[in-house]
Amino acid sequence: MSASRSPQAPSLLALNTYAGGAAALDATESRLVERRRATFGDAVPLFYAQPLNIVRAEGVWLFDHEGRRYLDAYNNVPSVGHCHPRVVQAIAQQAARLNTHTRYLSAVVSDYAERLLATFAPPLSRVLFTSSGTESVDLALRMARYHTGGSGFVVTRFAYHGHSMAAAEITPAFGPGVALGAHVRCVAPPDTLREGPGAGARFARDIAAAIADLQRHGIGFAALILDSILSSDGVFADPAGFLGPAVAAARNGGGLYIADEVQPGFGRTGAGMWGFARHGVAPDIVVMGKPMGNGMPIAAAVTSPDILASLSSRTGYFNTFGGNTVSCAAAAAVLDVLADEDLIANAAGVGAHLRHGLAGLQARFAAIGEVRGAGLFVAADIVENDGAWTPDTAMALRIVDGLRARGILISTCGAAGNVLKIRPPLPFSRENADQLVEAVEAVLAGP
Amino acid sequence: MSASRSPQAPSLLALNTYAGGAAALDATESRLVERRRATFGDAVPLFYAQPLNIVRAEGVWLFDHEGRRYLDAYNNVPSVGHCHPRVVQAIAQQAARLNTHTRYLSAVVSDYAERLLATFAPPLSRVLFTSSGTESVDLALRMARYHTGGSGFVVTRFAYHGHSMAAAEITPAFGPGVALGAHVRCVAPPDTLREGPGAGARFARDIAAAIADLQRHGIGFAALILDSILSSDGVFADPAGFLGPAVAAARNGGGLYIADEVQPGFGRTGAGMWGFARHGVAPDIVVMGKPMGNGMPIAAAVTSPDILASLSSRTGYFNTFGGNTVSCAAAAAVLDVLADEDLIANAAGVGAHLRHGLAGLQARFAAIGEVRGAGLFVAADIVENDGAWTPDTAMALRIVDGLRARGILISTCGAAGNVLKIRPPLPFSRENADQLVEAVEAVLAGP
Repeated sequence: MSASRSPQAPSLLALNTYAGGAAALDATESRLVERRRATFGDAVPLFYAQPLNIVRAEGVWLFDHEGRRYLDAYNNVPSVGHCHPRVVQAIAQQAARLNTHTRYLSAVVSDYAERLLATFAPPLSRVLFTSSGTESVDLALRMARYHTGGSGFVVTRFAYHGHSMAAAEITPAFGPGVALGAHVRCVAPPDTLREGPGAGARFARDIAAAIADLQRHGIGFAALILDSILSSDGVFADPAGFLGPAVAAARNGGGLYIADEVQPGFGRTGAGMWGFARHGVAPDIVVMGKPMGNGMPIAAAVTSPDILASLSSRTGYFNTFGGNTVSCAAAAAVLDVLADEDLIANAAGVGAHLRHGLAGLQARFAAIGEVRGAGLFVAADIVENDGAWTPDTAMALRIVDGLRARGILISTCGAAGNVLKIRPPLPFSRENADQLVEAVEAVLAGP
Repeated sequence: MSASRSPQAPSLLALNTYAGGAAALDATESRLVERRRATFGDAVPLFYAQPLNIVRAEGVWLFDHEGRRYLDAYNNVPSVGHCHPRVVQAIAQQAARLNTHTRYLSAVVSDYAERLLATFAPPLSRVLFTSSGTESVDLALRMARYHTGGSGFVVTRFAYHGHSMAAAEITPAFGPGVALGAHVRCVAPPDTLREGPGAGARFARDIAAAIADLQRHGIGFAALILDSILSSDGVFADPAGFLGPAVAAARNGGGLYIADEVQPGFGRTGAGMWGFARHGVAPDIVVMGKPMGNGMPIAAAVTSPDILASLSSRTGYFNTFGGNTVSCAAAAAVLDVLADEDLIANAAGVGAHLRHGLAGLQARFAAIGEVRGAGLFVAADIVENDGAWTPDTAMALRIVDGLRARGILISTCGAAGNVLKIRPPLPFSRENADQLVEAVEAVLAGP
């Protein structure tokens, strides 16, 4: 496996968070910070050096208690836009009519299950609903173990796959405080900026080596699990197709390929519903969540009849809130809006426009080492001007805070925390993108 | 540890489920059964020999596609009543205004966190929100391990604590198809019907022995996790206080006591908000879920600042859907309705009335070996007339199906599947209880 290429990885949860003290908070905000600490302790991170008190939202806009508005270029959960009226109506109507579980028959649930499965090609024809991406990942790990008889997993070096005990064991992005499982191996993501065009081939070789290393330790290989755009690692999306050799390495090793679509799924890449399609690969299990219900908790694992049978021949699967009637109604409205408002095409068009605008800044400012991504999942790799693309975490945070001061919300990712993560609701417009690019320019050109 | 006292345990998920084929389904139901199988495979259990197609609900009533109504004496999630207008309004209003996550400040979320914590005594003053009871249990296991340095858990013999990989490892109720963890020990629940009044003391001795057995195997003891009414084991609630010696055994063993309130919590026992209070014990961690948002996915783990610090000193905790604004608004409305409609007192009064009615049948029908429970968490232990209280699973199913034919919904539990599980929404009335008792009588007196 390749040696580490980045500074020591912090916890993803420590990136771009309030550290207390110095920020200029008004009385309302200060009081909420205190109340929050008195209930959540220090466990739950709060975004920004100067946290936000959000009270209302609409489309791509968030509003605080003073009526200040913020352009949301960060939140991928409200994917068809905050408080979309069709989703709100679907929730309100279904909540007033019935909200129950999957141990009764329900046309609402079966209709949605069929519509969702229609977005996949055979043999991906079975779905289990869960309450979160974490639950979906955890279920996928169980199915992979039952199906293969192996227990080992391979992930990327700063992957985030969830917070259950089993998901945390395959989540290096929690940082050194949370031990990885003995059955887990990590490989560096393909970083073409620093590695050059051979990054994809190196990535596949590292996966093969990681599988061999598991086997050398007597650990059967169960699955390779990868975001279809490597997200917390730093938004590695290109060149499309690099997942092909990686998946082939997993199959050669006798394991499954689990596509984590929790972030790229539901049209964000601008190239169809699912991120893996850009790479021409066919997953064994697909996990999805965040944008599925535009904020209503719903998530799923989609797989083949054979792999599902590895579970159902041992035990059933029942998830109290998974596939509840209201969440399914919300999720169906999300599919309606995605189609009727042509949001996948919008993600492609506006995403390209945004990357073009940022690339224009890259030509003028050395701090932008690379602009990358697909659709409305966009990143800028912020670097020092040293000819070595050394990650510049402080500058990335300066841009995030500078944008926040200008009323635009983004965050950071990557093992060094130096990559701007831009992941707005899909109705983001060219004008919204221009406003974002102009604000980045103002911060970079500023004192 | 005590020897097994019941027939070989099946999977909880196999109890009282549709087995296909023989049932008399109409065309709508048959088509939905087919569509369900074509999407969910055989993984998700469907209630009753003759499944139900539920399309609408209100209060304690469910309605199918033909307008037939069913008295709901089973569902504990819609705890303040199906589609309660105040909860529906809270959901609709908040969904139209804002639905976001806990990385921003929010008075909606902090208000609810404070109200929830006000139902606990110090040091239980910290809360983390999750999306499901499973996620809460999984988080509690992580915190217990971090806090104690141990990894071993003790549970009851047919406990159900969730479906994540870590929760499934401590869930014997999944049956033999799902292996328990090597770090898990099971003890038989205190069954006073079959063991006599010494059951509670025997239970505590078994817990001490299980902890010693873990330690003998080099496994440090982390926690005892118990439903405050032992639910899937067969609804063991009495005599109140029996948890005291059990918890003392855990503390003597150097571990924590985790109270699983996912089923008994939020007033169901009729004796305050939390089931553990009936026993005069003080948990280290409390997990809750199902009824918290009356169907909106929300759950939590409540603990002390010290135990939370064992987590937060290592890593943060962020849960995308956990504590989302809409779920918190729904959960706040649930607290309002519980108080304004005096539902805890109703659970106490109607629960006692229901148990009294069932005890009347017990005096006449040998099939009812014992009536037990607290508040509106009620069970009847169905037995053969052999003087040995042998579980009569077939008769329990006959009662469940007989009630379903009479328009009343209950289910079964217990390792032998012979215990009637009666767990209605809390607005259940004396008239509802009388209807249930009369229907049980009709089934028992029938051919």
